[in-house]
Amino acid sequence: MNNNLRILPLGGLGEIGKNMMAIEYGDEIILIDAGIMFPENDMLGIDTIIPDYKYLLDKLDRVQAVLITHGHEDHVGAIGHLMRDVDAPIYATPLTRGLVEVKLRRAKLLQDVELVTIQAEGTYQIGSFTIEPFRVTHSIPDCVGFGITTPAGLIVHTGDYKFDQTPIDGRPSDFARLAEFSRRGVLALLADSTNADRPGWTGSEAIIQDAFDKLFREAQGRIIVATFASIISRIQLVADMAARYGRKLAITGRSMRDNAKMARKLGYLNIPEEMLIDIDQVANYPNHEICIMATGTQGEPSAVMGRLARGRHRRLRIKKGDTVVFSAHAIPGNEEVVYRTINRLFQRGAHVLYEKIANVHVSGHASQEEMKLMINLVRPKYLIPVHGELRHLKQHAELAKELGYSPNRIAVIENGTPVEFEGDKLIIHERMPGGYVFVDGAGVGDIGWSVVRERDQLAQNGFFMAVVTTNGRGDVIGQPDIISRGIIDMAESDDLIEGAKDTIARVVRQHGANRKPVDKPIRDALNRFVYAGTGKRPFVHVIVK
Amino acid sequence: MNNNLRILPLGGLGEIGKNMMAIEYGDEIILIDAGIMFPENDMLGIDTIIPDYKYLLDKLDRVQAVLITHGHEDHVGAIGHLMRDVDAPIYATPLTRGLVEVKLRRAKLLQDVELVTIQAEGTYQIGSFTIEPFRVTHSIPDCVGFGITTPAGLIVHTGDYKFDQTPIDGRPSDFARLAEFSRRGVLALLADSTNADRPGWTGSEAIIQDAFDKLFREAQGRIIVATFASIISRIQLVADMAARYGRKLAITGRSMRDNAKMARKLGYLNIPEEMLIDIDQVANYPNHEICIMATGTQGEPSAVMGRLARGRHRRLRIKKGDTVVFSAHAIPGNEEVVYRTINRLFQRGAHVLYEKIANVHVSGHASQEEMKLMINLVRPKYLIPVHGELRHLKQHAELAKELGYSPNRIAVIENGTPVEFEGDKLIIHERMPGGYVFVDGAGVGDIGWSVVRERDQLAQNGFFMAVVTTNGRGDVIGQPDIISRGIIDMAESDDLIEGAKDTIARVVRQHGANRKPVDKPIRDALNRFVYAGTGKRPFVHVIVK
Repeated sequence: MNNNLRILPLGGLGEIGKNMMAIEYGDEIILIDAGIMFPENDMLGIDTIIPDYKYLLDKLDRVQAVLITHGHEDHVGAIGHLMRDVDAPIYATPLTRGLVEVKLRRAKLLQDVELVTIQAEGTYQIGSFTIEPFRVTHSIPDCVGFGITTPAGLIVHTGDYKFDQTPIDGRPSDFARLAEFSRRGVLALLADSTNADRPGWTGSEAIIQDAFDKLFREAQGRIIVATFASIISRIQLVADMAARYGRKLAITGRSMRDNAKMARKLGYLNIPEEMLIDIDQVANYPNHEICIMATGTQGEPSAVMGRLARGRHRRLRIKKGDTVVFSAHAIPGNEEVVYRTINRLFQRGAHVLYEKIANVHVSGHASQEEMKLMINLVRPKYLIPVHGELRHLKQHAELAKELGYSPNRIAVIENGTPVEFEGDKLIIHERMPGGYVFVDGAGVGDIGWSVVRERDQLAQNGFFMAVVTTNGRGDVIGQPDIISRGIIDMAESDDLIEGAKDTIARVVRQHGANRKPVDKPIRDALNRFVYAGTGKRPFVHVIVK
Repeated sequence: MNNNLRILPLGGLGEIGKNMMAIEYGDEIILIDAGIMFPENDMLGIDTIIPDYKYLLDKLDRVQAVLITHGHEDHVGAIGHLMRDVDAPIYATPLTRGLVEVKLRRAKLLQDVELVTIQAEGTYQIGSFTIEPFRVTHSIPDCVGFGITTPAGLIVHTGDYKFDQTPIDGRPSDFARLAEFSRRGVLALLADSTNADRPGWTGSEAIIQDAFDKLFREAQGRIIVATFASIISRIQLVADMAARYGRKLAITGRSMRDNAKMARKLGYLNIPEEMLIDIDQVANYPNHEICIMATGTQGEPSAVMGRLARGRHRRLRIKKGDTVVFSAHAIPGNEEVVYRTINRLFQRGAHVLYEKIANVHVSGHASQEEMKLMINLVRPKYLIPVHGELRHLKQHAELAKELGYSPNRIAVIENGTPVEFEGDKLIIHERMPGGYVFVDGAGVGDIGWSVVRERDQLAQNGFFMAVVTTNGRGDVIGQPDIISRGIIDMAESDDLIEGAKDTIARVVRQHGANRKPVDKPIRDALNRFVYAGTGKRPFVHVIVK
């Protein structure tokens, strides 16, 4: 047992300290968030990635609580996985709790997990930790950070935040509580670094109201707005505009519909019942009385916008005169497919507005001036930049240096790197082995980089296989079976197959007398033959019967 | 034979009218540029893409000339392919000609192709076309657009341009010639749309001098600057800084070294011989006397920066104190791998500067105000936005409308869509079938989407194959051979293989008496078995002997 305070970011992949964080003192651990990450383009076949919490597996009895900052996927998406292992209550504000319940229900764990509803102004004792949530503004309501008073000192964890002075729900960040923390003295601030490379202030959600008002005023045809399923405040904004300009609202895409339903039930989304219509009813109204909200801002082929772009939506078809709005940011790695989706919507006759050409989206994360304000508000002894790629954390550290923080008061760490406080001295430990856990089909953590590399080789070069029967005296019996995929068009493959058969016959003749093994010589010869003919190096496999 | 003027953008994939353009009148055709495109992330295994010029194949005798605007890959990269089919002279300015020669030499065509060196101020008669190049500023010297006087009217093609008033080589765009075209009356302007979504003016190459001056002044250790191999002006800028601050310069990465050598020979790059050192000599000098220029700004794993980031460069290793500069823009689709490379360089202890956090790169393309200026300078009857994705062309059209152009004076067309002028009336024809031509290994155009889709299936799900020998009476003889790749880790695959064998034995017992074919029942059963065990749907193939 260690009587120092330890802070350990778990999770992996670029986004450091975002998806899960462990705070440990004595024999008590609290966890903050349990989010998923999205696979990068070269992580072939991977569905999602969850934090690697192997470190916790022999300490599960010590986990006292899971605190959730807000209901976005990268903060709650892995809760269904985590709660199979962890037996501790989840603490969340009402809307966040609603979103967590949806996850637990899908994981068939809702009955087994204790959920504690917290209020942003409350104070909660969990073991020897005192938890004080504080309201922050982001792109979903009911978002909090946490003040965590430990026997070793006060830790402040911002969660995702920006300082929006005019948020859609009228509830700005809780500056008073942040100032109160500062007055008491803060040992360490763990602060969101997502936009550390953006100068200035992030715009308020209110500024996009103007852009939406203009487009609702001017659009003659239908208006189709795509955004993230969980940006409740954006759904509210669009619903308000639809009401103002006399349009019915249809919400489509399962996740958005579920979230909207839950948020309405809990009172976080205010849409009059008579305004809402089903997507099937859209055709019953004139174009200028229709507004549709949909999923698919990242160009996902199976989401609504992806299907509309390819003309594959069963109940809706883009037509000339439609105004389509991408009210979201293209996540790095998705730009290509997002822009392809936008181009296809233009091709189908829609007028498309997106972040680059219209103010239809603002970030939910603090920019540089807000990050400086947060540091100056909280005045921690130590800054631990979290939520971002390493380059963002480094830049966050640069900002703190501009405020006079010396490098030894800033800990830029990666996931899996424990930070420990001996008294108020900060020690950075060696990074622990581990990384991400791939979720792939039915498997969680069953596959690793070696399989992804196999897939990559198949993806780049395909495979080529031959099943050969020989008589052990230098003759091929019958015709070899040859199967290939992903090398060249089937229509062009006759020459390749005939040539491969000749190659096999030649090798068997040369090497196959006296029952000598010929699989390796055949494989080598086929490798050379396929490369000479196609320039490709597929996975070649030979079975000799 | 058609006595109307026709304009036809060839090429494909997002970037419209960029890689090749055909101008046709009577029985004469001239081509502008022959560039390559880079495959998108989901075009698995594809090396590059070249324009689809099937349309020309039965008209090759009519091609009078190939005009080249400048020496970047997306404008000259396919010249080695094109000149295997086309027998016509290439017209290019001296530096561009040098870069074209490199391509032709690699394609073993240098002896067979006539090259005509043109000057930016000259006038050239080619058949019934009068060609007047005009100087434009971009990110490579010796860059031109073309005025093309045809019997039907004057066409102006901007090529890639921005209006840089303080270019590194001291030669601004030729406003006089543009004004002269305007005076004569321009039928159609074909203008670069790349940055149509950027407001304002693109910064001059000169503004990044300040950022470089600051970093050269402050850096204590080595400076490593990565940029595109063909941005000669950036190489000049960095060389000037190295000279100013007493650093030796090593240029590494084959393409950059080749380009620099050629540009120095032709007088477009001015670096004193005694300043240049080989990468192997770097260790002979103190850190603060070293500057290295390298390739790999797009995170390409085999280029210098990619190898340095992974610690895989044979002659150079990143060390603490190095300043690394990414002096380039991450091309959409590459952001993820670029940022991963940057993060890894940070991990290795380098301080990394890149476009988002420092002024170390400016675009080579006009922003909105420059695009408006171009239109107002040339005052064409028709605007045909080119060089961009459809969304950029649409936005370029919006800008023209702001200048008072009515929609019927703007032709937003996609590659493969011919535009024809009947007198001065513009007609947009149906888009011709065709698309991109994939270059894949040794094949050019041999493979299409079907193979890419096969690769995608393999990449997402892998494959699973079984070779089964039966006695035709319901028994399996010996052990089936089972080969799988890309499904699960080999270490975990024993259960899968054993279960598959049981499945095969069961199906053969059930279906295989009386020599009934069992391959399809086995395949169906294996499909179900693999999906139940892994959640994956690989390509399953069964051979029954």
